[in-house]
Amino acid sequence: MAANGEEVKLLGVAASTFVCRVQLGLNLKGVEYKFVEQDLENKSEELLKYNPIHKKVPVLVHNERPISESLVILEYIDDTWKVNPFLPAEPYQRAMARFWAKFIDDKVLLASWTSVFSNDEKEREKNIRESDEALKFLEDELKGKFFGGEEIGFVDIAAVYIAFWVPLIQDIGGLQLLTNEKFPKLYNWSQEFLNHPIVKETMPPRDPLFAFFKARYDNLIASE
Amino acid sequence: MAANGEEVKLLGVAASTFVCRVQLGLNLKGVEYKFVEQDLENKSEELLKYNPIHKKVPVLVHNERPISESLVILEYIDDTWKVNPFLPAEPYQRAMARFWAKFIDDKVLLASWTSVFSNDEKEREKNIRESDEALKFLEDELKGKFFGGEEIGFVDIAAVYIAFWVPLIQDIGGLQLLTNEKFPKLYNWSQEFLNHPIVKETMPPRDPLFAFFKARYDNLIASE
Repeated sequence: MAANGEEVKLLGVAASTFVCRVQLGLNLKGVEYKFVEQDLENKSEELLKYNPIHKKVPVLVHNERPISESLVILEYIDDTWKVNPFLPAEPYQRAMARFWAKFIDDKVLLASWTSVFSNDEKEREKNIRESDEALKFLEDELKGKFFGGEEIGFVDIAAVYIAFWVPLIQDIGGLQLLTNEKFPKLYNWSQEFLNHPIVKETMPPRDPLFAFFKARYDNLIASE
Repeated sequence: MAANGEEVKLLGVAASTFVCRVQLGLNLKGVEYKFVEQDLENKSEELLKYNPIHKKVPVLVHNERPISESLVILEYIDDTWKVNPFLPAEPYQRAMARFWAKFIDDKVLLASWTSVFSNDEKEREKNIRESDEALKFLEDELKGKFFGGEEIGFVDIAAVYIAFWVPLIQDIGGLQLLTNEKFPKLYNWSQEFLNHPIVKETMPPRDPLFAFFKARYDNLIASE
């Protein structure tokens, strides 16, 4: 129960970059919420009730009204709690923020993930190229300290995967997807982002996640 | 050049449901624009200049500032021209509209398309089931005359594919994806939607599109 009598719940799991987006969104706004950890192998009644369509996390439940899809949730958070806006006020800048967040979903996530988590060598190589190409566009797009300028905005939150998960999985796969040599501006952004006090307190601890994904990777490689 | 001195251009092709969304958005707002037909087999300098990342249509160019991705463009149109809003003002309702538009993109488009345009029988059957399942969710979601209530809104525009393209491709494939028997509310919605005067004047003529997609289908079937 938040201070103003509103009930805000987040159904999630610790390893998910999509759930992390919502945690960042709520924490950057200073919204109090209850995190309800889910077991995706054994889906709860609550998850099936609140997200009967996709049966996935994250689900934000605000005063019993559920919302799913991480970018839709972020827009809702920005529309509902007006402090520290994520999206610029100017329509063209808003459109650009939405464009780049969608670009990350469509062009970065699967490509970088499959650069590591595939047991087909050709598939991995193709995805490394696609990840490189996508990150290069973001490198060129980055003009200030953050994508949002001086403050963390919508694209930065959407890009948490690039700051935290990409370095994690590149270490697992022994790759260089995001390095200072390849993408200096984006690498510098990732450091600034992860060192932001609210981001720092929001991110899950690295070691258990590393172990979790490393075990998946080892299983996959063993199945080759 | 629109009446108010603003220049609005739309780079598009006639057969694209994504381009049609933008045309509907502009026409429902009463925005004057110049349609610049593109040849996607031989991409124009203009397309490559305005959409260097995806090199696809639609691209809306407003006073020389380009925007791509049809749902991002629709949000921009709604943010820029305030008359006849597509998105509800209330944050939760806005989130639901965004959720359903994304649902159509993720769950309806590919499934219904591949119900017809695949030369793998099993793949076709799987996609018919997925299309049915997705359309059933929309059938249950439809409460009023339109998804937007009494007026056409964001979800209705996103769903133009269901009203116009689904009946077209089901006729080509000899399927029943959207019929009055299967989804009476959604079928009725499609008729109301297509009979709306502004939608009516926006839609491309059916016969050339039918011939265009039928030729693709015949080629595909011949390659089985």
